[in-house]
Amino acid sequence: MSETAFHWRQKLEQLRSNKLFETCVIAIIIISALLIGAKTYEETTRFERIMHWLDWGVTLFFLAEIIIRIAAEKKTLHFFKKGWNLFDFIIVTASLIPIEDSEMVLLARLLRVFRVLRLVSMIPELRMLLSALVKSLPRMGYVALIMFIIFYIYGAVGSFLFHDVDEKLWGNISVAMLTLFQVATFESWATAVLYPTMEVYPYSWIYFLSFIFLNAFIFLNMMIGIVLDVMQKESALHELETGEGEAADIHWLREEVAHQKQQLDRIEAKLDARR
Amino acid sequence: MSETAFHWRQKLEQLRSNKLFETCVIAIIIISALLIGAKTYEETTRFERIMHWLDWGVTLFFLAEIIIRIAAEKKTLHFFKKGWNLFDFIIVTASLIPIEDSEMVLLARLLRVFRVLRLVSMIPELRMLLSALVKSLPRMGYVALIMFIIFYIYGAVGSFLFHDVDEKLWGNISVAMLTLFQVATFESWATAVLYPTMEVYPYSWIYFLSFIFLNAFIFLNMMIGIVLDVMQKESALHELETGEGEAADIHWLREEVAHQKQQLDRIEAKLDARR
Amino acid sequence: MSETAFHWRQKLEQLRSNKLFETCVIAIIIISALLIGAKTYEETTRFERIMHWLDWGVTLFFLAEIIIRIAAEKKTLHFFKKGWNLFDFIIVTASLIPIEDSEMVLLARLLRVFRVLRLVSMIPELRMLLSALVKSLPRMGYVALIMFIIFYIYGAVGSFLFHDVDEKLWGNISVAMLTLFQVATFESWATAVLYPTMEVYPYSWIYFLSFIFLNAFIFLNMMIGIVLDVMQKESALHELETGEGEAADIHWLREEVAHQKQQLDRIEAKLDARR
Amino acid sequence: MSETAFHWRQKLEQLRSNKLFETCVIAIIIISALLIGAKTYEETTRFERIMHWLDWGVTLFFLAEIIIRIAAEKKTLHFFKKGWNLFDFIIVTASLIPIEDSEMVLLARLLRVFRVLRLVSMIPELRMLLSALVKSLPRMGYVALIMFIIFYIYGAVGSFLFHDVDEKLWGNISVAMLTLFQVATFESWATAVLYPTMEVYPYSWIYFLSFIFLNAFIFLNMMIGIVLDVMQKESALHELETGEGEAADIHWLREEVAHQKQQLDRIEAKLDARR
Repeated sequence: MSETAFHWRQKLEQLRSNKLFETCVIAIIIISALLIGAKTYEETTRFERIMHWLDWGVTLFFLAEIIIRIAAEKKTLHFFKKGWNLFDFIIVTASLIPIEDSEMVLLARLLRVFRVLRLVSMIPELRMLLSALVKSLPRMGYVALIMFIIFYIYGAVGSFLFHDVDEKLWGNISVAMLTLFQVATFESWATAVLYPTMEVYPYSWIYFLSFIFLNAFIFLNMMIGIVLDVMQKESALHELETGEGEAADIHWLREEVAHQKQQLDRIEAKLDARR
Repeated sequence: MSETAFHWRQKLEQLRSNKLFETCVIAIIIISALLIGAKTYEETTRFERIMHWLDWGVTLFFLAEIIIRIAAEKKTLHFFKKGWNLFDFIIVTASLIPIEDSEMVLLARLLRVFRVLRLVSMIPELRMLLSALVKSLPRMGYVALIMFIIFYIYGAVGSFLFHDVDEKLWGNISVAMLTLFQVATFESWATAVLYPTMEVYPYSWIYFLSFIFLNAFIFLNMMIGIVLDVMQKESALHELETGEGEAADIHWLREEVAHQKQQLDRIEAKLDARR
Repeated sequence: MSETAFHWRQKLEQLRSNKLFETCVIAIIIISALLIGAKTYEETTRFERIMHWLDWGVTLFFLAEIIIRIAAEKKTLHFFKKGWNLFDFIIVTASLIPIEDSEMVLLARLLRVFRVLRLVSMIPELRMLLSALVKSLPRMGYVALIMFIIFYIYGAVGSFLFHDVDEKLWGNISVAMLTLFQVATFESWATAVLYPTMEVYPYSWIYFLSFIFLNAFIFLNMMIGIVLDVMQKESALHELETGEGEAADIHWLREEVAHQKQQLDRIEAKLDARR
Repeated sequence: MSETAFHWRQKLEQLRSNKLFETCVIAIIIISALLIGAKTYEETTRFERIMHWLDWGVTLFFLAEIIIRIAAEKKTLHFFKKGWNLFDFIIVTASLIPIEDSEMVLLARLLRVFRVLRLVSMIPELRMLLSALVKSLPRMGYVALIMFIIFYIYGAVGSFLFHDVDEKLWGNISVAMLTLFQVATFESWATAVLYPTMEVYPYSWIYFLSFIFLNAFIFLNMMIGIVLDVMQKESALHELETGEGEAADIHWLREEVAHQKQQLDRIEAKLDARR
């Protein structure tokens, strides 16, 4: 690498980790978010020209920023190893594609909406919260699968039994599952779903109450359990790393007591040796 | 047992624990679930013939699978000792009974719905989640009993007091308890139940608010308590088994310190002996 | 005390702690509960005579049972020292008062409803669950006080600001607080309360959203906190009593290490003495 | 400071920490709260004169109380260092400003409502609960930010897609976010929001269900996590302070074992020295 290039890379690295630069990027992301919000108002058609230029300004700034961050990296490919960097890159480059087709305008708009998510990639505290969330995902997946099986079974049974009561609510399994989701959120479940069904099948309350109990029981049980479990492990890990708190104390005790054991062995051996 | 039979049993055992075979069974269960779902759509009457053959195919595959699993067992009766095996056996054999009577068709359909539950018996992670759930059942039972007593008392009082306000909501104790369940889920409880009642009995809000508070208080208190308790015991047990984490460290400490106590006793005795 | 009386007291004590006798009492309580439930049905007027005799039978059985339990006590006053005994006594004796006045019939009925609560006093597991609940009451009281202050402030502000919007919802502070409770349970809070208010005061969403956030935040925070705290203390106490689990291990460690400290002091002193 | 002034200050200090005086202040605060409540009733216009004098009485009592508390302080400025004192001072002095303008009457009324909050500053248990709440605020802030980002993105997407379905629900981003908040509280979300939208866009259920799942998942996960974390740290801190409980035992163990380590070192050194 030539010396000039190396000099430049260092300067860019300084710029990238500059607090002011970071604040500036966050500010531009917020402006971009406000632009998206503003576009949803009718009155903005008057300021269409200004909006258009502002939008291009934001896009170009993001492009410049991502180029700086790539150039500051020692090897260009290192940049793409982090998930958030890849996300930033896709969001920024995709907005550059010129869209003539009026049908694609909506897609371009939606893409710009996701720029708001760059806020998460910029603020470390949010990134931490999200990574903690991701850790509980695999176990959540199994809970979701059990819930889906329950919904599927009740959905099939519901559409077999109540098919004639209300075609809109129980017409087929997908409609029935949506109705069950409405019941699970307690939205008009009694007045709009239970009572009309009970007029035809007086014992249908067994179906609904068993569904609600099963749902609430499994959901509450598993969700609280998983959240607690993940949280406790996180907390114990954090304590071990910082060396403070119960988990760290107990770990220290274990090591220390193991050392004392060796020392006691030595003392006993010395006493024996002197006999 | 003849050698050929032994040879065959071993082959079947290999087949049973084969990863591909397991995946295949799971796939067939999912196909069976999709068939059930498809039957709830009107259009499926066109494909009735195909559906019928597919259904028989699934039933026969399940029969073959269960015969393999039974034959792979050293003693046939061992197979029926596990709850999940028994469940699988009943679900599969019950579908074999030929049903001519058109009234029984619904029952046959419902039975086929429960085949989806075989997914739980096939995936170990789901089986584990469910067994954890079952452990909290007995204590949940007592909470449910307390809740039922509260509902019964409020239901009786409600149907004595508000009998004249709305026959449909408070006509007798079972209707009143259903109304109270609706109130407990907060579904139109104010607009459809509280306000009409308050027009006749202005002080009836005391009845409803005390019910809601009692309910929320007991439910939250006990549910969270039980879930936490069961979860903590599970987690401590798991830590002791793997030998990692706080519970394992503390257990190790207890044993180690008890050993050191004996060693110190020996050292003291040796010192005394040399006087 | 004469010997015959002593002999009788022992027999009664045996009867009281007899498993069959307890089961019998529980059965009568359930029959009493079913009687109360049956009375809420219209058709029961036909069986009024039978119901009347059954009711007297239950009352007399309860009277006999309570006399046995009092007589089995060494000192009669000891019986009234336990809260549950006092509760049983009041419920049973109050049903004996003959009521001629037709206006008092409702009160007599309500009194009989509370007999169901005797189930809680008979089943030890329910009594334990309830006593755990009672322990979290004092701290719950303070949370309830904070919640009440929030409701009072929002109620007053609401009835000052939205007085003209809807007299029925915001007429005075008590009506406003009831409306706010409806909002807190999310029942038609947007369609029936928020949107009509926003038509007059477009910025009233600040009032409602701040109320909902404050409510959810304080309630969730404090409830979970208190339940966890009470439960953890209960669990630690239970572990110390049974001598198993983390809390017991740590307690044992503390005592044992303190003993070893003394032993080490002795060993060091002996070594010093021999110099 | 002159001796008389010192003498007076001591007397005031005694008065301030007098239990009766505190009870009296709490009583006056409750009377003040009742006055505010009473003003929301129509009938109070009849007692307007009495109300007016009572209001002035309360204001003057509060003024006297705050003067006593300031005078009892060694240095006047010390008084304003505590947040609650400052809060009390502002609430009391602001009510003294005479308001002629009829438009300002509402503001004066609202100001008087906040006097109820003085109850929190007077009862130590409530002050403790609130300070525990404040500790979880910073982390709650980040969760609120993530939730806001989700609402913003879904709000923008919703107002782009469903703009034509219902102008009142999806007209612009702020209206759409309010609709989404209604969906998040499950209020008429299916009957009033989902089904009308699905009639135009049959696949819009993906939008709503993904929003509800994301919301519930993140909210539950983070809220429970934060509450538990803050609570556990509080509880461990309390145990360390009082010297009882697990955290205290483990801390004591750590110190004691470290001491024993030194003692064992000494014993080993002594044994070595005597060789």
